Amino acid sequence: MLSTPIQPRFLETDALGHINNTVLPMWFEAAREPVFKMFSPELNLKDWKLMLGKFTVTFHAETHYGSDIEIKTYISRIGGASFDVYQECWQNGIKTVSGLTTMIHFCHSAKKSQTLPEHVTEQMQQHLIALD
Amino acid sequence: MLSTPIQPRFLETDALGHINNTVLPMWFEAAREPVFKMFSPELNLKDWKLMLGKFTVTFHAETHYGSDIEIKTYISRIGGASFDVYQECWQNGIKTVSGLTTMIHFCHSAKKSQTLPEHVTEQMQQHLIALD
Amino acid sequence: MLSTPIQPRFLETDALGHINNTVLPMWFEAAREPVFKMFSPELNLKDWKLMLGKFTVTFHAETHYGSDIEIKTYISRIGGASFDVYQECWQNGIKTVSGLTTMIHFCHSAKKSQTLPEHVTEQMQQHLIALD
Amino acid sequence: MLSTPIQPRFLETDALGHINNTVLPMWFEAAREPVFKMFSPELNLKDWKLMLGKFTVTFHAETHYGSDIEIKTYISRIGGASFDVYQECWQNGIKTVSGLTTMIHFCHSAKKSQTLPEHVTEQMQQHLIALD
Repeated sequence: MLSTPIQPRFLETDALGHINNTVLPMWFEAAREPVFKMFSPELNLKDWKLMLGKFTVTFHAETHYGSDIEIKTYISRIGGASFDVYQECWQNGIKTVSGLTTMIHFCHSAKKSQTLPEHVTEQMQQHLIALD
Repeated sequence: MLSTPIQPRFLETDALGHINNTVLPMWFEAAREPVFKMFSPELNLKDWKLMLGKFTVTFHAETHYGSDIEIKTYISRIGGASFDVYQECWQNGIKTVSGLTTMIHFCHSAKKSQTLPEHVTEQMQQHLIALD
Repeated sequence: MLSTPIQPRFLETDALGHINNTVLPMWFEAAREPVFKMFSPELNLKDWKLMLGKFTVTFHAETHYGSDIEIKTYISRIGGASFDVYQECWQNGIKTVSGLTTMIHFCHSAKKSQTLPEHVTEQMQQHLIALD
Repeated sequence: MLSTPIQPRFLETDALGHINNTVLPMWFEAAREPVFKMFSPELNLKDWKLMLGKFTVTFHAETHYGSDIEIKTYISRIGGASFDVYQECWQNGIKTVSGLTTMIHFCHSAKKSQTLPEHVTEQMQQHLIALD
């Protein structure tokens, strides 16, 4: 499991007084940075190797401003060229949101997907979770 | 079908040169405004009646800066207290992204869900789509 | 004067119930698109010719969700390589926010500023305003 | 001086490959949280005591994705009901952006400004900077 601390920002609240729903995909993207580094240790934007295929975000409870967040990040599927990232947003002992993101190992210049490199899948194994 | 025009903003691009993935939930939320108005014609924030349960966003093609967007919004399920909104993002004749959002008719002060009012479901019927 | 309509998004509110302050620079950037087109009619991101030097945003009144916005955009200074854009945010007949942005005609590959082209300054003349 | 670490998010880049200008007011707002706590130690959104009057953001160099940020926050003016916050964004030993924000001690229900409390100005004294 990869753990990322996030501090909610005032601007991320909305008029209902909690964190707006559209903020969660941003936090989850931020918390995937260790996964990005498996592909590009230097986070080289000129040779980015990933593409996002799909994400699902499920809301279990309200997330609030004023208390720290922990995003827990797991790998829930390792495919040929793609993989799934499962993430949870925790605040004050409550799992408030969960998310599942499908990412594709992708060559942006050739515009085609590529097999996941072995040194990457080895790292992913360490963060594997079985979802029911 | 409800149609919402969106102009991509420069700041919504990312270093890959296209619209960042996290922007789509924002556009889809903006395009659900006519649905919000079914519940609150004045968009009264002090008596908001909706809660988001879950959303799934699927990326079919890159979305670019510099060309107008049309978001097409449909109702794909009408339940007892909840309903699903199906949305598509179109640019230059291409469906670049689709999204499915589950919303709940919710009383924020009582913290409980409520049956969808009949005058709302009647309006929703006009925008119904059958997803396979 | 260049006029840009903006529809406030629910997510742009914050817990105080109005549009968050950090949203205004985004709306102002969106409303500078006609200025961007003076430099690059096709909005070509691979040959972008502008750099932002500085912006000041002044808040006169609250901006709300639920009513349309008009951003009025003027050129308030035409210099050698740089120029100032003056903008106002109007809602329900009230000027709620104003902004002043200094932009520089800039070659991102050579990393140096460049004289404003005459065909650009001619267009700018049409939107000139004298600030006191 | 108050120091706040920030990790740039991939989504905060734009097509030019750096952090977009509109992101800086967000980081600066996040880094004013210790100032918010001077007024409301619990960050109580239902009794918020601040209003933003104006901000100026000046760009000195590009800010990049992939390296940590430090935001340095100072108080540069203590007035009767208002005060100024001066902030700098540092990355890899370079001051890339600076900002000056005027905030007002404000009662949102009475809609009027209020004298800064002494226990607040005492805390502000510790972070005072003299700008030239």
